[in-house]
Amino acid sequence: MTAVGIDAIEIWTGNLKLDLPGTFAPEKGEDPEKYTKGLGLNASSFPDSYEDIVTMGANAAHRLMERKGLEPDDIGRIDVATESSFDNSKPVSTYVAGCLEGVFDGDFHHANKGERKFACIAGTQSLDDAYNWIRAGRNRGRSALVIATDTALYARGDAGEATQGAGAVAMLISEDPSLVELSTHQGYGSADETDFLKPNQQFPSVDGKRSVQVYLARMREAVEDYESVAGDVHPDDFEFAPFHTPFPGMVRKAAMLAYRHVTRDTAIEDELADEIGRQPRREAFDDEETFHDAVREYMDSLKETDQYREWYDSTIDPTLSISREVGNWYTGSVHVARVSALKTALEAGRDLTGETLLVGSYGSGAQAEIHAETIVSGWEDEITSLNVDEQLEARYDLSWEDYEEVHDVHNHEMDVDVEEFTAPESEFVFDGWGRMGERKYRYVE
Amino acid sequence: MTAVGIDAIEIWTGNLKLDLPGTFAPEKGEDPEKYTKGLGLNASSFPDSYEDIVTMGANAAHRLMERKGLEPDDIGRIDVATESSFDNSKPVSTYVAGCLEGVFDGDFHHANKGERKFACIAGTQSLDDAYNWIRAGRNRGRSALVIATDTALYARGDAGEATQGAGAVAMLISEDPSLVELSTHQGYGSADETDFLKPNQQFPSVDGKRSVQVYLARMREAVEDYESVAGDVHPDDFEFAPFHTPFPGMVRKAAMLAYRHVTRDTAIEDELADEIGRQPRREAFDDEETFHDAVREYMDSLKETDQYREWYDSTIDPTLSISREVGNWYTGSVHVARVSALKTALEAGRDLTGETLLVGSYGSGAQAEIHAETIVSGWEDEITSLNVDEQLEARYDLSWEDYEEVHDVHNHEMDVDVEEFTAPESEFVFDGWGRMGERKYRYVE
Repeated sequence: MTAVGIDAIEIWTGNLKLDLPGTFAPEKGEDPEKYTKGLGLNASSFPDSYEDIVTMGANAAHRLMERKGLEPDDIGRIDVATESSFDNSKPVSTYVAGCLEGVFDGDFHHANKGERKFACIAGTQSLDDAYNWIRAGRNRGRSALVIATDTALYARGDAGEATQGAGAVAMLISEDPSLVELSTHQGYGSADETDFLKPNQQFPSVDGKRSVQVYLARMREAVEDYESVAGDVHPDDFEFAPFHTPFPGMVRKAAMLAYRHVTRDTAIEDELADEIGRQPRREAFDDEETFHDAVREYMDSLKETDQYREWYDSTIDPTLSISREVGNWYTGSVHVARVSALKTALEAGRDLTGETLLVGSYGSGAQAEIHAETIVSGWEDEITSLNVDEQLEARYDLSWEDYEEVHDVHNHEMDVDVEEFTAPESEFVFDGWGRMGERKYRYVE
Repeated sequence: MTAVGIDAIEIWTGNLKLDLPGTFAPEKGEDPEKYTKGLGLNASSFPDSYEDIVTMGANAAHRLMERKGLEPDDIGRIDVATESSFDNSKPVSTYVAGCLEGVFDGDFHHANKGERKFACIAGTQSLDDAYNWIRAGRNRGRSALVIATDTALYARGDAGEATQGAGAVAMLISEDPSLVELSTHQGYGSADETDFLKPNQQFPSVDGKRSVQVYLARMREAVEDYESVAGDVHPDDFEFAPFHTPFPGMVRKAAMLAYRHVTRDTAIEDELADEIGRQPRREAFDDEETFHDAVREYMDSLKETDQYREWYDSTIDPTLSISREVGNWYTGSVHVARVSALKTALEAGRDLTGETLLVGSYGSGAQAEIHAETIVSGWEDEITSLNVDEQLEARYDLSWEDYEEVHDVHNHEMDVDVEEFTAPESEFVFDGWGRMGERKYRYVE
């Protein structure tokens, strides 16, 4: 069977930066470590007044197509995943295609364009749809462009305000890919939950505590479902586990839960038994409460063991390096985590060809998905071609006053006109409103 | 290759009815024939105050699952297509699954739920994703549930007000289907168009004239793209051509264009030549304008020929029978057209097994898709099981005052409390708002 997977990936950050320990914490009268240690975040990427989900998505796709020498005819499918959409009918992918048609010869008139919505998991769902489309033999030799783009902003003063972010990830899904091959096997954990909503509004209503519980519960279901088809997962089976990262602190919790799950009934549990005992089993306890207390106690001990720390440092921590500097990108987040891991490994000179990633995607509302990816020959060139560091470095550092001014620009309930902080160059920009209330765009040389 | 297609289909109409010639026309001071002949519509289905896209979608899916004897474990995927969504993050499919879990044993925790948006074409896109998922070998023997649900309402006084409608179509996509097998071949016509928008609003902004032009232009591109992979299409190749039907008058225009296209360079064009001449060819004209005038003249003559009338009456008119009574259902519309055609054929006692449908889907913004479906053994039982006539007959006939009262309930910008006109029975209903602004539902026995 021909390999199908991600051939190339590009990241496009919002052009502004909010320094959390340096700017946000002092203004809130908080200890900077609440952000850097607690949430695990140094900064949020933020969109300038001329940026939105279309410009960031089109810019990521443009860079990807240019770098890979692609023409519109090479693309048979363009799906955009977002939870920041500004129209209930017209999909963002049509705007993105319109932008790209302005700078490429040819057009995307025979490409299937679409839009998926399911909180932060829709990017992975679009990846899966593209994989299935190729496997179904409907691609006619063409590739799919999947774009995950969001302005993940919260209302001012909301508990989520420190976890904001904005950016886009563009991925090219192809036969014989140069980055990772996707597994046929998938596991799902999904339930009708009310943890994070945007009822006819752009800034979310969040039940933060519930959201953390739901993330962990759905992720566990997804791992179990994945194991039911792919066989038991063991920590030795994968090099990295990129998870959806609303903020790195959330992934710390998820990683602990995952490690406990995948080491149960393994030699690792046996090795740890002398030091911290064996994992509590439900059947050994009279009720849920005492069982959960025992689990919590086991987890507290587990997290201090050398085995766990080494596993976390090598398998999870490398997935968080970019997230720490950009915040939450919603649909793009898990795909940023994949890039972080591969970039860290490349910089360490590691050869990952043939190695496996265990990818955990999640969307509130709520659904988790687990699948595996095999890193393929060519991955070093793909990751070398990225300019993530340059992009992050070039961001304009917002003062608190700047931040207050630009925040409302991205709330769709308001029409705010704010002077731009940066000068766009070689990128698509928002260019005002058309006669039917549509957003217009142009390319700035 | 195992056949993959639609195993079962269910239709759920809004419980109210607006009589266009009898109630709407007199109030507007218009000739009733403007609606019955011009638009081709007798009535619009309308949602009662306790109905919305979730209740209609869940009711259609519930009836389908009950009738087919399905349990939640039989379903591996639930996709909802809509352009009437009320949350920018949480997908409608999670609400629908939550409703169904209330009446079935078991749950959908390992099913992939999602939501697609692209005006009226997203239902067909979800159908295609489900087909691809099965073809990719990821379904584990399970089927997919695709639900197209919309409240297609316009602002009061808008030109589109007469073409309103509301309803849902649920489809079960399976291996070895009992209704139609889907073709691998597809044709697309797609461009970044501004003809119909819902910029952060529930009732659309429409450029009606442009929308008709764009429908026809994209549909032509899609047919050409389809022919490039499946070979030339000839009128003898298909029994019916269900098209997206915003109103039957639109399909009359599309059918004429399609017929001209597929009869060019065929014996049919030769046979018609004595009566109305051959089709104008661009190369025989000095400029676009005189060419277009000649085409218009040819079309005017074509539409009066016996050949065209017979083809239209047998191939297109049967697809419009339900639409005439329910109006536009947006994402569900083309799927209602398919049911109309099969139901008409069943009532005429025709044997369609092995015959072909040419299906033309469309969404503003804009994209058309063409694919073929082969009617399979079992279709009569599937269509016999529908209770469309009973549903349409049972609708409450709105007076003008009723209509004015209930219309605003379905505008998301307003919070309106209106007494219900009908008494729900054996169906899901909207049950008020939760603490985070979520919509809540319950089943009424």
